[in-house]
Parts: sequence; structure tokens; C-alpha cells
Amino acid sequence: MTSREKHDRMANAIRFLSMDAVEKAQSGHPGLPMGCADIATVLFTKYLNFDPKNPHWPDRDRFVLSAGHGSMLLYSLLYLTGYEDITIDEIKHFRQVDSKTAGHPEYGHAAGIETTTGPLGQGIGNSVGMALAERKLRAEFGEDLVDHHTYVLAGDGCLMEGISQEAIALAGHLKLNKLVLFWDNNGISIDGDVHLSDSTDQIERFKAVHWHTIEIDGHDPEAIAGAIEEAHTSDRPTMIACKTTIGFGAPTKAGTQKAHGSALGEEEIAETRKNLGWDSPPFEIPSDILDAWRLAGLRSTSERKEWEQRLKDADSNKRADFERRAKGELVGGFDGKLEELKRKFADEKPKDATRKHSEAVLEVVNGVLPEMLGGSADLTPSNNTQTSQMKDLTADDFSGRYVHYGIREHAMVAAMSGIALHEGLIPYGGTFMCFTDYCRPAIRLASMMGVRAIYVLTHDSIGLGEDGPTHQPVEHLAALRVIPNLLTFRPADATETLECWQLALESNHRPSGMVLSRQKLRAARTDYSEENLSAYGAYDLSPSSNAEVTIFASGSEVEIALDAKEMLEKEGRATRVVSVPSMELFHEQTDQYKAAIIGNSPVKVAIEAGVRQGWDAFIGHDGIFVGMHGFGASGAYEDLYRHFDITASAAVEAVRARLNG
Amino acid sequence: MTSREKHDRMANAIRFLSMDAVEKAQSGHPGLPMGCADIATVLFTKYLNFDPKNPHWPDRDRFVLSAGHGSMLLYSLLYLTGYEDITIDEIKHFRQVDSKTAGHPEYGHAAGIETTTGPLGQGIGNSVGMALAERKLRAEFGEDLVDHHTYVLAGDGCLMEGISQEAIALAGHLKLNKLVLFWDNNGISIDGDVHLSDSTDQIERFKAVHWHTIEIDGHDPEAIAGAIEEAHTSDRPTMIACKTTIGFGAPTKAGTQKAHGSALGEEEIAETRKNLGWDSPPFEIPSDILDAWRLAGLRSTSERKEWEQRLKDADSNKRADFERRAKGELVGGFDGKLEELKRKFADEKPKDATRKHSEAVLEVVNGVLPEMLGGSADLTPSNNTQTSQMKDLTADDFSGRYVHYGIREHAMVAAMSGIALHEGLIPYGGTFMCFTDYCRPAIRLASMMGVRAIYVLTHDSIGLGEDGPTHQPVEHLAALRVIPNLLTFRPADATETLECWQLALESNHRPSGMVLSRQKLRAARTDYSEENLSAYGAYDLSPSSNAEVTIFASGSEVEIALDAKEMLEKEGRATRVVSVPSMELFHEQTDQYKAAIIGNSPVKVAIEAGVRQGWDAFIGHDGIFVGMHGFGASGAYEDLYRHFDITASAAVEAVRARLNG
Repeated sequence: MTSREKHDRMANAIRFLSMDAVEKAQSGHPGLPMGCADIATVLFTKYLNFDPKNPHWPDRDRFVLSAGHGSMLLYSLLYLTGYEDITIDEIKHFRQVDSKTAGHPEYGHAAGIETTTGPLGQGIGNSVGMALAERKLRAEFGEDLVDHHTYVLAGDGCLMEGISQEAIALAGHLKLNKLVLFWDNNGISIDGDVHLSDSTDQIERFKAVHWHTIEIDGHDPEAIAGAIEEAHTSDRPTMIACKTTIGFGAPTKAGTQKAHGSALGEEEIAETRKNLGWDSPPFEIPSDILDAWRLAGLRSTSERKEWEQRLKDADSNKRADFERRAKGELVGGFDGKLEELKRKFADEKPKDATRKHSEAVLEVVNGVLPEMLGGSADLTPSNNTQTSQMKDLTADDFSGRYVHYGIREHAMVAAMSGIALHEGLIPYGGTFMCFTDYCRPAIRLASMMGVRAIYVLTHDSIGLGEDGPTHQPVEHLAALRVIPNLLTFRPADATETLECWQLALESNHRPSGMVLSRQKLRAARTDYSEENLSAYGAYDLSPSSNAEVTIFASGSEVEIALDAKEMLEKEGRATRVVSVPSMELFHEQTDQYKAAIIGNSPVKVAIEAGVRQGWDAFIGHDGIFVGMHGFGASGAYEDLYRHFDITASAAVEAVRARLNG
Repeated sequence: MTSREKHDRMANAIRFLSMDAVEKAQSGHPGLPMGCADIATVLFTKYLNFDPKNPHWPDRDRFVLSAGHGSMLLYSLLYLTGYEDITIDEIKHFRQVDSKTAGHPEYGHAAGIETTTGPLGQGIGNSVGMALAERKLRAEFGEDLVDHHTYVLAGDGCLMEGISQEAIALAGHLKLNKLVLFWDNNGISIDGDVHLSDSTDQIERFKAVHWHTIEIDGHDPEAIAGAIEEAHTSDRPTMIACKTTIGFGAPTKAGTQKAHGSALGEEEIAETRKNLGWDSPPFEIPSDILDAWRLAGLRSTSERKEWEQRLKDADSNKRADFERRAKGELVGGFDGKLEELKRKFADEKPKDATRKHSEAVLEVVNGVLPEMLGGSADLTPSNNTQTSQMKDLTADDFSGRYVHYGIREHAMVAAMSGIALHEGLIPYGGTFMCFTDYCRPAIRLASMMGVRAIYVLTHDSIGLGEDGPTHQPVEHLAALRVIPNLLTFRPADATETLECWQLALESNHRPSGMVLSRQKLRAARTDYSEENLSAYGAYDLSPSSNAEVTIFASGSEVEIALDAKEMLEKEGRATRVVSVPSMELFHEQTDQYKAAIIGNSPVKVAIEAGVRQGWDAFIGHDGIFVGMHGFGASGAYEDLYRHFDITASAAVEAVRARLNG
């Protein structure tokens, strides 16, 4: 048992590292690390199973700092417990260009940072995904290999964001009892007292979604320990409301918003040193305290070794599968199975919606890859995401592989990131393309982290018809294409759908959006090609030497482009059609390839049932764009394409006008 | 008192209009209108104060169908109660191109549609804004002129979406007791039973945010009436949980997801006719029932007339102010006051962040326009949104003009739409630019509806510095510029900030985003100009005849462009600088103006600390782009501009390479 005095000094080590780092940077958030130092000290020194020397140990507990602005809490912990990535020098360079200690914790910057946080509430969503992955893999591989907790620290801001409700409702529904949420109940937000804007009874709120709840003094180490132990025995996720003082220890700023988001100032820090009895200079930790922390960092070594032994002793197939999946590698037979289906598509040339083709591809993929974990935000029959293998995953039965995420796109995508970050599973989840707006903050973070999560985005244009403008994506393709590191795929037929799925699955370090039609489309690719042509992003679908006209199109508009070509060629105008399943992949090709694909036809046309932005890179700003210029409308989709002049004849007419004008 | 038999037949009129219209369209959602017909019948025939012949009566009660897929419920009610816009012919043309009866209710298509709904949860946010506006205007103009209820009908989907939590927490906090939410508790979602994905105790959840709650049988008219009367006496908002059967009356599909989102089929409808004892053919309402409904539509006529008399009798200034604000007109002295400030800016050439200039402009605007209702999603000191006039609005004192929305960007923007739709107030609200992602679905609907709401979006690029990539907008400018009908302003200095605010306020039928810097910028406009140059969207800031180089830039990069020009001209390269405060407004100019602004310099450059998408329209796809190519980083902003090569020298070097290559 750590003495209270020792505990306090260990917690103060976090406090002073944090306030001194913020002071040196003259930027950052000292208030949370100071307020939550006691919680973190108890958790990291007594309960968290982790091994700083083997930070990727698959069965480690996960710690997520959802209130990411308190990043110095995490950096302090990583330094103190002995993670090699976070040296004292990194702490001194907090928030400077090229340091690992970015303003908010960035996944990939240093081991021990389990996810990127900062935008509030996201970490709660991630932690639900991690806890879900743990529970699912435990069902699959057994407690010998998978048995750990997920801890998440959230502030008032996290709990005010809507995503928190979606996430906790899902966690409560699935009874993810190894998930523990600490609420840093400090009563302060940026505008001032939280009561300026909120009077939620958080305990009652969590109870309403079937969480176990505990209320404690967040500065009492015994109460913190007691609460964690109680949480460990709960059959439901646990929320521990920790009453804390923001900026704990600062004589004039503690308990006020002045401690939240800026350096405390030399004088206040000097007074805090006196107040807390801390006489070490900045960035120096008394050796007995550093030793105690480093010892805490060695706590789980034997447990980690025992786990490694259990893995070694496991059935060789099980072990191989576990290790392959932890590494994120696909099974050997994956490509072969897809090739079979690709030949079938080339033979049969199925005419159907790409969402249906996607289902056919998934039927094969899910049969080959046991790590696929599917789901939908309550649009299963529309997204075509539940294949024959995908039994429902429920609170009582985690052998299922299909998650009914509910009408919670935002939590779904954040949870999918948590699932991917956990490792061992590849999450895919469906919603309507239009509702990417609802989950955009989570898609952005997935892209920043480079997780392999695949969004199945059906009903991708006015082609969805009668549901009208509220449901018709118009600007969404352009809006997704601008998110760095995200792959946006819009396949034109069965073959391209297969190719795009293959690319998405092979992209270990990027999320992908599969943008799919509701309406039926005829086959654009009629010959079998072993090569994945969609990998080029854009390619010559229907070439023509010395083409007078080049038409670029994606997805459901490719068949319109092919019709326009036919009409133009009847008039003696040589015409090329370029299919563009992924603008991002195209822009990543060599300059030579890009120049060849863009070509030098005197007339360039782009056809896409979305806005123009992005297409100027293909057709130039004087090119002809056949697409949307505003919101859609409600009606049968064939009528809408005519209404908005997205037709082969409209394209042909525009070409004629250009050639004759 | 309506007899039960009469009530049932009146409710069945809604049911059959709905199922027959969906059947004819072979598209739509019969389940909700059939399930909620009893609730709607009681509300519209006994409690709702409204006048179909004077649908814009300012003191009418508002009814919001948050579960917008149940649009036939609303269209049926509008037809039955006698709104002229919704004829039986419109009902017959449900979901067809050019009909007023779109798939989801579209604001502006027909009187009586108070807001556009469909994307779930949004209507709850709108209704909170409407109730807030009512309460605020009541405090200002008195109960004689403002005293009405806001009713909102929400389904399980609305309540699962995160925005619902943000919205109900805000409403509970502000004690908006004239807000009544009916929860259509039918236990069914698209995937099947709601329990597949949710087990929330909604009653407890609403209690946790201080709502009054009532549980009733949603098919019992007396219980419905009793609940509404109880709600009217509550000092808090009320949630009425109505246990209903989706598709009520359909013999085999009622109570299942089969009734939710597709036509019931001829046979099922025939059986429903038998089951409910309804022998009228489709689209024919028995005359006694239609009469009863039309009579219900006349219920509030005398109340409306009395209100008009009270308005007539009111103090003439008060009356004029009320009428001006209801019409959305600005006060006469508005432009003059802004001109004074504009002259001051031209004289003083203040060097500061545009967020600070925005505050200075707001200080004048808020002094002139009492209808300005400000707020922030808990970033008041960062957004600079609270000027001297803006006392806090609280549950106990609605004389304030400043709303602490809490860390709830999504509900804030949806509520702002509700405030604007209510009429009488102009809402503006602040958040970080990056968090437009969190409220994008609500921004989109505001744009679709064309409401005047102004988003104050500070910290607009890597220029925010140390908070790093999670908080640095990179793709957000491009992503906002693609939303149809939204105005995105990114002013370069004090003068442009003023001009952009003026344009935003004068844009009656468009929302605007004011994209503002955290860092200080020097004045770009140094001479006074009476004309609002920002109104052109892009204009010659620093002209040069026969320019060899034209540099386009927006916001904080304009000063970089001006520096680059100076450097280039020292080398003898004539250079123009075009400031681009609003791409949208530029694209709306005449072709002649656009051609002149784009000009024909051999070298064109765009400088913006965001992604390239959108700029090709100015510089061509072979133009030089100085901007971001991926996510940002954490560091001092000056370091980051250098790190990412967004500097005058980088621009000059690229120009040199082009001219010499």
C-alpha cells in the first residue's frame, strides 16, 4: 500500500510536470492534469495492466484520455512510468513542431497514446469500440488471450457532446462491463461555471442507459481505488463521478476557468510549489518519486510474460490466427477468392445497385476473413451490410459478428476507430452517404490516425429518389474527398465494387468510404482483368485514339458517360470515357500517368451527380460539367436525372455547343 | 367534447390519406402517420393554436415533425385543417418532382411546414430554438404579443441521435416550459425491434436533464388530452412518452418494421379498410369528417383576431419594432453606424486578429439591432462573441441576449435555425472553425431552408498554432464552400470583417459562416471605400496593369500575398493581388466580372492555409497553389507557416521557378 504522503508526491509529480511544461510552452491546459492527477496515479500505479517496455502487448489495458486537452496528464504518465518515446526532453518541448508531445495526444507520435483525442467526446466513442473489440475477441479467443479493461477519462465537455450519449447508450446496451469511465467532475468549462450552460444529473443520465455509477471524491486515493475495484465486479459498464478541483493546488486559480487553458504564470506556479510542498525545479522529479513511478511501470511485467507463455502454448492455428490478425495481415487465400468472384462478375455482367454488388463482395470477404466485424446505423436492409455469416452480436452473445449500432452514426464511426485501434478486427459499418455529415468529426480523426475502418455509404446521390434533398448527397463526395488520408471510392459496377473493396481492405493505414448507389446500374466493365484497375483511381474505361472528347465520370454516371460516347461517335466524334472510382488514388499516381489519363482532347467533360468542386483538376475550369448545382429534389430517380439535366443527351448537347461554338 | 367514434374516424382520415398516398407513390413511410394519428388529432383539434388561413400569424403555436419521414402525417393535417397550399391533388402527387409534398417536409414548400426535417434529431434542436425564441421575445414584448407553445414529435431515431441529448439538456437547463415533446414510442426501427440496439430508459434520461415526463397510451385520446393539459401547467419542458403501434390498423404489418418505410400493398390496405371500418375510396374523406377537421382549422380564428387587436393597440414604437423584426428587416440607422466604424478602421488600420475585429463590429451591430441574439458553444472568450450589450440569458432571466449553449455545437446550430425560423431574432453563435464538422448536418439544413443564422468560426487554420491538427481546420473551408446556399466569408482584416458582417446580416435568406483568425493580421485595406468590396466575393486589392503574376488569397494569407507582391515587384515582375473573402459570392458575379478578376497573367498563384480544392477555378489546374497538403501540426503558428511553406518567399520561389522553367 502506498502511503498517502507518497501518493500525494507521486500525483504532484504529474502536476508539476504539467504546469511547468505548459508554462515553458506558454500554451496548453494545466487544469485537467492537476485535477486528475490523483485518479491517474491510483489507476496507473495499482490497476492498469500495461508494460511501457512492451507497449503493444495485445492484452494490455487501454487508457483513453477523452478530454485530450489534458494531454500533459498522459505525457507525464508515459514519462514517469518509463515509456521510451516520452523523454524529459520531449516534455520540455511540449507543443513544439516535431516534438512527440503535441498539443493534443496524437496516435502514432508515441507508444502509449492509444488514440488521438481533443475534439470532445470522441475518446468515449473510441473506448466503447475498444471495449467492444475486447469482449468480441474474448468470446473468440478465450480469456487466456484476451481479458483486459478499457479506462476512459472524460470531462464535462465530453459529456455535453451528443456523441457521448450515443456511445454510452450503446455501451450500456451491450453491457460492456470492462469499460470504466472516469468523469472529471470539476464543474468548470471555458465560459466559466458549468452551470452556466448545463444542469444535467450525470449519475441519473448514466443510470438511464444501464451503467453502474459511483460517486467519489476524486482527490481521495482510497475512494478512487475502492471505486475501481467496485467497477471490476460490475456486470455493466461503470461511470465513476470524481469530484475534482481543476488546477488542484494552484492557490488563486484552482477551481476556476483560469486554470483550464493557459499557462498559470510564474508567480502562481511558485505559490503552487509552496502550497503543495514541492521544491524541485521544473522538469526534475525527486529520485525516490521517479523510482516509485518506474516501479509502477514494471508492475505488469510478469503478467505480460505469463500471457506470452499462454499464447505460445495455445493451439498453433489459434495462435497463428491471433498473431496474423494482431498484425493486421489478410489471410493468404483472400485474393484468390476475390478473383473467382471477379471472373463471375465478368461472365455474368450483373445489372444491379452497387450496394447489392457490395453485399455480394462482402459475402465472399466475410467468409474468408473472420476478423471482419460488420454493422450498420440501423440501415441494415438498405446498406446491404449483413451477409450470411454475420449473426447479430448481442449483450448475451458475442460470438456474433454484426453490430446493430442503432441510429448513432457518430458513435458508430468513433467506435469503429476504437475497434481498429484495438487490433484483431476489421470494422465496417453502414449508413446513408448523406449522414457522413453526422459522423464527420470521427471520420476525420480516423483519417488522421490512419485506421483501417470501412464506411459503407449507400444512397449516394439524387439516384436515391423520393426521399428528397434532405437525404440526397450533393456536396458530400467533394466534402469527403478533401479529408486528408481518407480514401473515397465510388465504383461504377460489380467489378469496380469488388476492386474498391479489395483496395480498402488492403489499405492497412487508411480508412475508406465505399460510396454506393441505391439504383441499378449496368455493367461498365465487361471483360475480366486480373489487374485491379481501380487502383489507379482513374483509368481508360473505353479508350479512343485521338479522341476529340474525353468524358470523366464516377459511379452511377459512368453508364451515362458510355451512352454519351455512343451518341457522339455516331456523329463521328471520337470519344474516350475515363472511369474515376477514386480521385485520391488518381492524384497519387505518377505525373506521367496522370497526364496520359487527362489527355489532350479539345473537349473535356465530367459527369457526376454531385457538385463540381474537385473536377476542375480533370477538365480544367473551362471544362464541361454535367452535375448538380444546388440541392436535389424529391421524385422518382429517373425523373430527377432528367430534371437536373444529368443525362447523356445533356452531355452530348453541351459538347456539340462547345464544338460548334 | 369529440366522441370517441368521431375521434377515431378523424384519426383514420390521417391514416388512410397517408397509406393511400404512400401506396400511390409506391414510396414513403406509412407507419408513423398511422401510429401517431391519435396524438396529432387531439393536438390539432383541441390544443394547437393555429390559423390555416393566416399561417404566418406570429403568435401561433409551432408544430415540428422531427421524425420527418412521417411527412404524410403533416401533409394530411395541413390538408384536413384547410391550408390552401396542400390540396388533395398535392397529396395525390406525394413525392413527385415539383409537388409541394416532398418525401420529407421541406420548409418553404407550403405554409404550415415550420422547418425542414428528415435527418433525425434535427427537429428537436429546431424546436428548442423556437421555444427559446418564444421565451426571449415574451420577455421582451410581453405576453400580450408573445405567448405560444412549441410541440415536437420525435421518434426513437431522433432520440438515439446525439443531437437530441444536446438539445434536451439545453432546454431542461433553460426551463423552456412551453416546449412539449411527444415521443412516438413504437419500439420499432428499420433493423427491427428497437431493443436490437437500444435499451435506454427514456423517462429517466429526460428526468436527468430536468424535464417533466408523462407516460401514456398514445392511442387513447383522453390520455393524450390529459397529458397535454398537464404539460401546460409544468414549469419545465415536458416529454410525453406515447406508447403507440407503428402502422396502427394494418392487420399483418402493424407493430413491425414492415410498416415503417414502404407502401403497405393493396391487399394489406384493403384489409386495413375492413379492420378500421373505413369504406371511402383513396383520397376521399367522408364529408362529415372533413367538415369536422375544417372546423378544427377555424378554432383559433378569434384568438388570432384578438391578438391582432392587441398588436394594433400596442405602443406604436413597440408595434413597429415587432413588425419590423417579424419581417426580418434591419433598422434604418444600421448602415450609417457601420460606415462610421469603417471610416475608423480605414483611419486607424488596426492590426489584430479578425476574431477581434469581429468583436468590434458586433459591438456596433448589437448596439443597433436589438434582435441580435448571441452565443457560443462554450468558447466565448475565444470566439469574442459577447459584446458589452450581451448580458447572459438564463433560466431565470430572459432579458439577456447571450446564450451559453454549452459544448453542444450541433444543438446550437439547430437551435439557431429554430430561432431564425421563429422570426423576430437574428441568431449568431460561435465555435472553432474545426468544429463545423460537429454541426454540419444542421448547417446543411439551415442552408437548405435559407435561414439567416450567422456562425462565428474562429481559429480558422494552422494559424491557431499549438492546439495542433485535431483543432486546425485544413479541409473545412473547402468543405463549407461546397454546401449550396451557404455563404462562407474569410475576411483579411478589419475592413473586410466589417463588410462580411454587413453582407451576412443583409442576406435574409442565407446562413453565413464568418471564418476568423486567432492570430493578428495587419490591415490589407488601407483606404476607406464606401462600396462594400467584399460583396464581389473577390476583388482587386492591389492592382497592377499587365500583371505577369496574379496572386489570389483569402483571410490571413492576404498579407502573405501582399508581401510576395512586394518581393516580386522588386525583381521587376508586375504582380496583382486579389482578395477572395467569399468564393460563393464571386461565383455569383457576371461572367464579365469574373473574367476580369481572374485575368490573364501568365502565372497564377493561390495562397490559402487550407487544401487546394476550389482554387483551380481561379488559377487553373496548372496554377501554383501555396497551401496545405495534409493535416497540420502542433507548434507556434509562425513556425507552422514556415514548416508548411506557406510564406511569401515560398510563393516567390515557386513563381520564379515557373517563370524561369
